[in-house]
Amino acid sequence: MTKLKIAVIGYGGMGSYHANTILAKEKDLFEVVGIYDIDSNRQAHAIQDGLPVYENLEEVLKDSNVDALLIATPNDSHKELAIRGMEAGKHIVCEKPAVMNPQEFHEIQKVIERTGRTFMVHQNRRWDPDFLILKELYENKEIGEIFQIESRVHGANGIPGDWRHKKEHGGGMLLDWGVHLFDQLLWMIDSPIKKIETDLSFVLGNEVDDGFFSYITFENNMKVLVEVGTTNYTKLDRWYIKGTKGTAKISDWDLTGEMVVSKETQSVVHPTPIKAGVGLTKTMAPPSEEATTKKKLPKGHEMNQSFYQNFYHVVKNEEEPLVKNEEVLHVLTLMDNILTR
Amino acid sequence: MTKLKIAVIGYGGMGSYHANTILAKEKDLFEVVGIYDIDSNRQAHAIQDGLPVYENLEEVLKDSNVDALLIATPNDSHKELAIRGMEAGKHIVCEKPAVMNPQEFHEIQKVIERTGRTFMVHQNRRWDPDFLILKELYENKEIGEIFQIESRVHGANGIPGDWRHKKEHGGGMLLDWGVHLFDQLLWMIDSPIKKIETDLSFVLGNEVDDGFFSYITFENNMKVLVEVGTTNYTKLDRWYIKGTKGTAKISDWDLTGEMVVSKETQSVVHPTPIKAGVGLTKTMAPPSEEATTKKKLPKGHEMNQSFYQNFYHVVKNEEEPLVKNEEVLHVLTLMDNILTR
Repeated sequence: MTKLKIAVIGYGGMGSYHANTILAKEKDLFEVVGIYDIDSNRQAHAIQDGLPVYENLEEVLKDSNVDALLIATPNDSHKELAIRGMEAGKHIVCEKPAVMNPQEFHEIQKVIERTGRTFMVHQNRRWDPDFLILKELYENKEIGEIFQIESRVHGANGIPGDWRHKKEHGGGMLLDWGVHLFDQLLWMIDSPIKKIETDLSFVLGNEVDDGFFSYITFENNMKVLVEVGTTNYTKLDRWYIKGTKGTAKISDWDLTGEMVVSKETQSVVHPTPIKAGVGLTKTMAPPSEEATTKKKLPKGHEMNQSFYQNFYHVVKNEEEPLVKNEEVLHVLTLMDNILTR
Repeated sequence: MTKLKIAVIGYGGMGSYHANTILAKEKDLFEVVGIYDIDSNRQAHAIQDGLPVYENLEEVLKDSNVDALLIATPNDSHKELAIRGMEAGKHIVCEKPAVMNPQEFHEIQKVIERTGRTFMVHQNRRWDPDFLILKELYENKEIGEIFQIESRVHGANGIPGDWRHKKEHGGGMLLDWGVHLFDQLLWMIDSPIKKIETDLSFVLGNEVDDGFFSYITFENNMKVLVEVGTTNYTKLDRWYIKGTKGTAKISDWDLTGEMVVSKETQSVVHPTPIKAGVGLTKTMAPPSEEATTKKKLPKGHEMNQSFYQNFYHVVKNEEEPLVKNEEVLHVLTLMDNILTR
């Protein structure tokens, strides 16, 4: 198998993670041939990390040894880099969010058509094990038909450093984390969105959102809550999932959680009223022991290929992309509607 | 102190809880002089419980020994019972929701004005210890200024029995539990509502809602999420509370929970990136150990009087009511807007 030679553009947190961790796992298929960053400190870091460094972008684009670029720069620079790359004959892996808005993506799509290059956005969280547990539950119906999904990521560290604080660079948490959370759910749920209500949070006083809260109703009546918070000193569960026969929680990245399923006993088992606050409640009492059973969370839907394995075979015209550009455009359009409302 | 003589109208779950538990604690101030229920089985229950029983409503209203009525009947009968009671000279404690809609409440208010009787709605969950912890946090600012409150009650037993399944009787979970959750927050938050979005749930296929989800923005920018679910086999925390300096959770009626507060150290303590799913994140990493501290939840705001102690003194013209009728009307109007939208 001929390896694909890839150059990494942008050597910040994500660029170096691609070069040294993700691509390092795919050594049979990829070779990292060099790095380019406009910041000389980061160039120096790359050299320290033992990676070849290009003097400038033109050098990368002219290098006929380079088959593909990984773009991991601030969001407002993706479009130009991707277009110049494809025009120079390179295939592209682009960090998320792909671009600033749907208009920019249309420009990219035209260049894809003209050049025939592969352009794939690194929506890597489709491979997150916690999400793949949800996906398996969604398909195997262990808790019945799923009708409500709550997806939360909570942190207490504010918006991460530098350009993500700036609107002009495509900062803010909707674009940074929302793009993952919407992508996961829109990819899985095979129904159009009927209604979406979003509230952006600005409690930290930045010009970009420090989190958001979205409530989505799909045409098939699925309800989805998506929340990102960066001022949450203690967290709620990563996933809360309601099905017609049970409820599941995936608490954290460590995949702890629980799943409680109705036993569907023929005879109705009445709950015992509990004292709740200063009142009594049967409604909010736990279901009686005989009525439900605790189960282990499933292992998670299996993905046959990693992102980069798939990218490799798409470039070789052997596979369909697992992250399709129309899906990327769908999420960009959704976020753009929220931001420009 | 002259005791108030009270008759209980409706001897279902709530009526018997008032007669045998709540009023039994207030024996210095109240005497339960009799019960009336239209259902002969319930009349028989009252007799078994050692309580005197009236033959019919007229007998209660004519009994000059009765100072006050406790109305704990289906919601659609509250208005007529309250009005007839006040016209017969009785003071009224009425179960929640007071009546079916704001129009009915206006009719009641006219009779209050004309007769000068006391009419108080049993919004007892203002005394719930979990809510009083929130109220103390809201006032003492231990987690800074609170800017987001999430109030959830989750059960898995569906809508409770008989009339609460019927629209004509004022059934459904918005009226049954929503009335408490909205009342608590609207009482505490001293700001008008700017926007409310509500989604009623009908997953159980009843003609009334089996739960709901409301997202409220107040004029002072407080964000509130209120949720009631009756198909939740495992629960989220009762309260999730975000302040400018920390976050608190009150998990359940047993008052377990946690509170994590920023140490506000002068030097910025950077979090360590964590592996989250297939990606890396600094944003969603826990704050570093040096940056936060865990604290115990406070004991809760103290209420000087119980509901019935206050009612007693209001009847005697010695106190202002702790549950004011304009507050009750406010919540009724809010719920009516949701139901008739």
